[in-house]
Amino acid sequence: MLPFRVINQKTIEQILDMARVIEKVEQAYTLKAQKEATLFPMVFHEFEPGKADMDIKSGHLTGANIFGLKVVSWFGENTEKNLPQLIGTVMVLDSRTGAPRGILSGEHITCMRTGAAGGIGAKYLARPESEHLLLVGTGHQAPFQILATLTTMENVKKVSVYNARSYERAQAFCEKIQEKLLQMVADQYSGQDELRETYTKRCQIEFVPVENIEQTTKEADIIITATSARQPLIKREWVQPGTHITCVGADMEGKQEIDERLFAEARVFVDDVTQSVSVGELETAIKKGIVTPDVIVAEIGEVILGRVPGRQSAEEITIFDSTGIAIQDLLTANLVLDEAEKLGAGTVVEI
Amino acid sequence: MLPFRVINQKTIEQILDMARVIEKVEQAYTLKAQKEATLFPMVFHEFEPGKADMDIKSGHLTGANIFGLKVVSWFGENTEKNLPQLIGTVMVLDSRTGAPRGILSGEHITCMRTGAAGGIGAKYLARPESEHLLLVGTGHQAPFQILATLTTMENVKKVSVYNARSYERAQAFCEKIQEKLLQMVADQYSGQDELRETYTKRCQIEFVPVENIEQTTKEADIIITATSARQPLIKREWVQPGTHITCVGADMEGKQEIDERLFAEARVFVDDVTQSVSVGELETAIKKGIVTPDVIVAEIGEVILGRVPGRQSAEEITIFDSTGIAIQDLLTANLVLDEAEKLGAGTVVEI
Repeated sequence: MLPFRVINQKTIEQILDMARVIEKVEQAYTLKAQKEATLFPMVFHEFEPGKADMDIKSGHLTGANIFGLKVVSWFGENTEKNLPQLIGTVMVLDSRTGAPRGILSGEHITCMRTGAAGGIGAKYLARPESEHLLLVGTGHQAPFQILATLTTMENVKKVSVYNARSYERAQAFCEKIQEKLLQMVADQYSGQDELRETYTKRCQIEFVPVENIEQTTKEADIIITATSARQPLIKREWVQPGTHITCVGADMEGKQEIDERLFAEARVFVDDVTQSVSVGELETAIKKGIVTPDVIVAEIGEVILGRVPGRQSAEEITIFDSTGIAIQDLLTANLVLDEAEKLGAGTVVEI
Repeated sequence: MLPFRVINQKTIEQILDMARVIEKVEQAYTLKAQKEATLFPMVFHEFEPGKADMDIKSGHLTGANIFGLKVVSWFGENTEKNLPQLIGTVMVLDSRTGAPRGILSGEHITCMRTGAAGGIGAKYLARPESEHLLLVGTGHQAPFQILATLTTMENVKKVSVYNARSYERAQAFCEKIQEKLLQMVADQYSGQDELRETYTKRCQIEFVPVENIEQTTKEADIIITATSARQPLIKREWVQPGTHITCVGADMEGKQEIDERLFAEARVFVDDVTQSVSVGELETAIKKGIVTPDVIVAEIGEVILGRVPGRQSAEEITIFDSTGIAIQDLLTANLVLDEAEKLGAGTVVEI
C-alpha cells in the first residue's frame, strides 16, 4: 500500500505565505516557458448552466518531478446548505513513479496562487513607480489580489475598490480590508519578523470605495479585475496610457471583464495561450474578430526569464490575461507538502 | 472543513465481490444509455513513450448523484523500485454539492470492473450454451476475466489460456489458477454461503495452456483478449461462426489484439463509441479503412436495456470492444464507499 498526506485548509493557511507563493507561481511560469512543464487539456462540465459546474485542470512539472490535478466545483446553491460554493481538491503525484504524494484542500491554494498571479502581472508589466491600484471586484479573491500587489509593488499608496452592483459593498469592503490584510500578514509571516514588518508597513495605505468607475480608471496605474462578469466593466476610452491591467476573472467561455477593444491597443501577455484564447479574457476579443491570437506577445514566463521584454515604455497599456493554470496549483501544493513533511502536519493515510 | 473517506486496496478487496461489481458495471452501462451518465474527455499523457504514461478518466452519473475521476499511471520501471507498475486513485464527489465523498485505491477497482466488463460481454453476446473460454493473456487481469465469465456463464467447462510469448507462462498460470480462483471466491463471498458454493462449483473445471492458438481459436465459444499487444494475436480465418470476442486490452492509440478484418464480419458492440473509435480495439480497423464507426451496432447498455438485440443467431460472430470507462470505476467505488460507511471501514479525514 502507498502512503500519502492529506492536508486540510486550516493547515494550508498556516503554512503558506504570499511571498513564497509568488516565488512558486513565478517558477511555474518559467518552467512552462522552459518546456519543463506541460498542461494537459482542461475538462469542464456544467451540471446546470449558471448554477453548478466543475473543472479538472491537470499537468506535469518535469522540473519539479510532480504531476497532478485540481478538481474544482462551483455550486451556487451551496450557501443554503451551509457548504462553500467553491470546493476544490488538489492531488499531487510523483512523476518518476506515479505514487501519490498528497491530497490537499484546493480553496486556499487557489486563492493564494490566483492572488500571486495578479502580483506577478503588476511586477513585470506595470510601471515600477505605480502608486494607485484599482481593484474591480469585492469577492473572495479581492484580499489576495491586494496582498499580492502590495507584496510585489512597494510604491502602492492607494487601493480603490469597485463593486459594479453595489457601492455599499465596496464601502463595507474598504472599512474592513486593512484589518483583514494585517491579520493575513500576521498569520502568514508569524515566524518571520522582518517580512512581517515589511508587509505590515505596506498595508498602511488608503483604501477607497469607487463611486465613479470612469474617473477612477483614468487615475489608476494598475487595474486588476477579479469578478465573474460576463459584460465588460472597464471601457476602452477610460484607460489611460501607461496603465497595466490584469484580468483574473475569466476562466470559462462567455466570461468577460474589460472592453475587448483594449486588446487591439495593448501589449498583451497571458499565462497559457490555449486557455487564454479558449476560456480567458481574450476569448471574446478573438470571437468578435477584434484581434487574432497573434496579438499575444508571449506567455508571462518568457518575460520573467528575460527572453521577451514586458513593458517597453511608460505610455504603453499592458494586459496580463491570467486564466489560472494547473501547474500554479501543483507547485504551490508541493510547497505545502514539503513544509507539512518537515512539520509533521496533516494526516498520513495509505491507499 | 469537509470530511471524506480514504479506502485502501486491502479494504476494497474485502468489500467487493464479482457478482455485485457485475451488477454495478451493468448499471453504469445502462445509465449511460439512458443519458443519466456522462463521460468527460479523457486526458492522456506519456511521460516517456513505452516506459511511463498516465490517464485521467472522469465522468458524471446523474442517476447516482456522483461525479469523479480516476487517475492511473503506468511506470514500467517501477518493479525495480519495489513499487507496482500500475498505480490508480479514484476520487468520488457528490454531484449535488461538489463535496468529496471518498478517495480510493484504484487498482483492485480497475481489475474488478474490467473483469466484470468481460463477463457482461459474454452474458449478452455469447451463445448461452458456451462451454469453452479462450483467454488470451496471463497478466494481472487474467484471473478477473475468468472469474467474471464463470459468474455470468454457467455452462463454461473449459478455459484455455494463451500467452503469445511463452507457452511455459501459460502452463504456470494454469497450474495455479484454480487455487487462485477458489481463494478469490472464498474471500469475496465469505459471508454469503450460497453464492460461495455456487461459484466454488463453477471453478471445478478444466484449465488448459494453449500450444496451438489457431486450433484453440477454432474450438472456443468465447474469446477474451486481455493483453497490451500492438499486433493482432487472433487471425480472422481462425474465428468460427458463433464465436463471441471481448477485447479489453486496447485502451490507448496503437494497441491492437485481434485481426482488424474481423470487424467487417462481426456484429460489433462497444462500451463508449468515442473511446472505442479513438483508443479502443476499433481504432486500427477504422484507421486502416476496413470499417467506419457505423459498424458499431450500439453501446452495450442498449443491449442490456433490451433496446437493441445483441446476438441475433447462433452463427454470428459478435465483438465487444471494452475500452474501460470512468463511470464503471465511479459506480464500483461508490459501492465500496456505501459498504465502508456501514462497516466503519477506511479512514475519515477532513480537507
